[in-house]
Amino acid sequence: MRKVSIVGIGQTKAGEHWERSLRDLAADAILSALKDAGLEKANALYVGNMLSGELTAQQQLGALVADWAGLGSIEAVKVEAADASGAAAVRMGYLGVASGVQDVVVVCGVEKTTDADAETAIAAWSSGTDAEYESFHGLTMPGVAGLLMRRYMHEYGVGREDMAPFAVNAHKNGVNNPNAMFRSPITTEAFLKSGMVADPVGMFDAAPLCDGAAALVLCPTSRARELAAKPVGIRASSVSTDRVAVHSRRDPLFLQAAYLSAQKALQQAGVGPADIGVFELHDAFTVMAALSLEACGFAARGKGTLLARDGEIGVQGRIPISTMGGLKARGHPLGATGVYQIVELALQLRGEAGANQVKCSLGMAQSLGGSGAIAVTHILGI
Amino acid sequence: MRKVSIVGIGQTKAGEHWERSLRDLAADAILSALKDAGLEKANALYVGNMLSGELTAQQQLGALVADWAGLGSIEAVKVEAADASGAAAVRMGYLGVASGVQDVVVVCGVEKTTDADAETAIAAWSSGTDAEYESFHGLTMPGVAGLLMRRYMHEYGVGREDMAPFAVNAHKNGVNNPNAMFRSPITTEAFLKSGMVADPVGMFDAAPLCDGAAALVLCPTSRARELAAKPVGIRASSVSTDRVAVHSRRDPLFLQAAYLSAQKALQQAGVGPADIGVFELHDAFTVMAALSLEACGFAARGKGTLLARDGEIGVQGRIPISTMGGLKARGHPLGATGVYQIVELALQLRGEAGANQVKCSLGMAQSLGGSGAIAVTHILGI
Repeated sequence: MRKVSIVGIGQTKAGEHWERSLRDLAADAILSALKDAGLEKANALYVGNMLSGELTAQQQLGALVADWAGLGSIEAVKVEAADASGAAAVRMGYLGVASGVQDVVVVCGVEKTTDADAETAIAAWSSGTDAEYESFHGLTMPGVAGLLMRRYMHEYGVGREDMAPFAVNAHKNGVNNPNAMFRSPITTEAFLKSGMVADPVGMFDAAPLCDGAAALVLCPTSRARELAAKPVGIRASSVSTDRVAVHSRRDPLFLQAAYLSAQKALQQAGVGPADIGVFELHDAFTVMAALSLEACGFAARGKGTLLARDGEIGVQGRIPISTMGGLKARGHPLGATGVYQIVELALQLRGEAGANQVKCSLGMAQSLGGSGAIAVTHILGI
Repeated sequence: MRKVSIVGIGQTKAGEHWERSLRDLAADAILSALKDAGLEKANALYVGNMLSGELTAQQQLGALVADWAGLGSIEAVKVEAADASGAAAVRMGYLGVASGVQDVVVVCGVEKTTDADAETAIAAWSSGTDAEYESFHGLTMPGVAGLLMRRYMHEYGVGREDMAPFAVNAHKNGVNNPNAMFRSPITTEAFLKSGMVADPVGMFDAAPLCDGAAALVLCPTSRARELAAKPVGIRASSVSTDRVAVHSRRDPLFLQAAYLSAQKALQQAGVGPADIGVFELHDAFTVMAALSLEACGFAARGKGTLLARDGEIGVQGRIPISTMGGLKARGHPLGATGVYQIVELALQLRGEAGANQVKCSLGMAQSLGGSGAIAVTHILGI
């Protein structure tokens, strides 16, 4: 098994790209990543995407994107794991290089949600829940988050205001990310005044669906120095799953897949949570940020919001999260999000994160699918 | 890079499963495959599926199926490459084991098309074409096949009747496969009299969409003998792509992805077409069978139908194809088909193909996505 490094990164702005097609966004990110690596070709392409079939009747993104990006007739398939599709594609690229089968792999996460109206897009996003036991009965992704947040507040005696620091931090960081969808700071007051999406989930608890594409170039670590001035090593890659329907889980407030996946990744990298200098987590909803911090060992059960209250999640804090805006402010282009996280982590480790630079040599990214049915964790180091 | 073997196979009947859900079919095939291998658990699951998002608003099949099959919290994601999704999932399983990351991998192909009416299912199937340049303008998968077949007949001076032997052979073989959707032989006369689907593609040129699931258990070849009396080795695994829209290809009658993928696979296995004793090809339409035989080196350009006319594709022929009924008679459960092909090839190599047994020690399976935008080729040996 070979060690794997990231030698190229690319991304489009996350947001509403009315004038651009899915394949165009994907090719844009891929060509940026290849240029970053000083390469023109690759042996394989893995595309992470969740909804192109449902929203635009286009499957087969592997061949479609490989062709549009000028990659020729290379191996190219799509990987889907709901919101974690992009991260799962990174995992596939990792396996391709680690196996010795492929030398240069491009991974691209891409999503275009604005080709459909917002209601259709949110309904489609909800196909990441259990269709027969959840969404068929009207439960949406924001609805699931509402149930989890209500339960969290009840069990741990916290209020809506305790969730505010997650959103405030994300928006603060988004200001300095030119590729973020939202670049305006928000106040706790605005957070509390915002309208309800799915009580108690308010508008500022929820990440916006949007369009975007991000891409990586992977190669064996033994070749990485030839291609990049600062290759970023993938120290660990892991995937765990849980029951899809929240009501089937033993404890709805314990993200078991996130826990197991983080444990495996930390073990593979031979480190503990205290060694992680930056953590790009899945803040699709503020409550998911709290639950992720707890599941991954950065906070005790029920104490995730205290980390946020005490400023420990800020760029200067103990465990900076959402350093480029997170899902909340950078935007959440579903199947692309997991690749954006890795691109942003690579920027941090290369020292190219600008005003949001964190001093660190080891970072973790974790992407969740649905309400936590799958967790894909990567640990990167320089 | 480790060698990989198949130590367990399982399948449900292909057909109309009105009373069973997608997850139920998938778990059925997986549990059969695990039983065949004498195992209860696996390290990872790759699910091949094309349309569960479009037809039943259910994504996230990795976690969903892993849970339903009792596999616990293992790594589990979905792989999509249109009709070749199942074969692409086999490829991912191969990479997982070859890399040394996973010891026991389950691959499952599953599709449920009967949850939607036939028109909706065929429209969804057509999302394997180029949505913006083909299906949006009304071109369906049978429509693309009609264009290709018309062109084939024009270029090579063959008639509809020359395509008949492909369908007759497939239905003859389906009779002896208890898991086939159609188990009745057909005559050339019936073939010629059948109604048009997309002129000149008639009903018996086209494989039926249906429901079904098939599964494999993969492990390192070094461990295979412990688990199976007759492990089947994966001697080669390859993927190539082509432009998705037929009009963008240099030559619409040359399946470039099929050609490149077969060449890579033959090279990896160190053999030539003459060494292949059985070939499970992608006979979604009779013309695709002819084009596949030509692209993979079993017949010269324009001569595919002659192989069929001369009986060389029969179980006793020079290059038996569709030995368990093929897509035409076993049925074409889209994302499951590529795994069915591998299961059937394994049955042949294990000497368990019953009345359709071919005497062989090396076989090839090739699955195509859309009208040939992707080709996934595996060579198996015993």
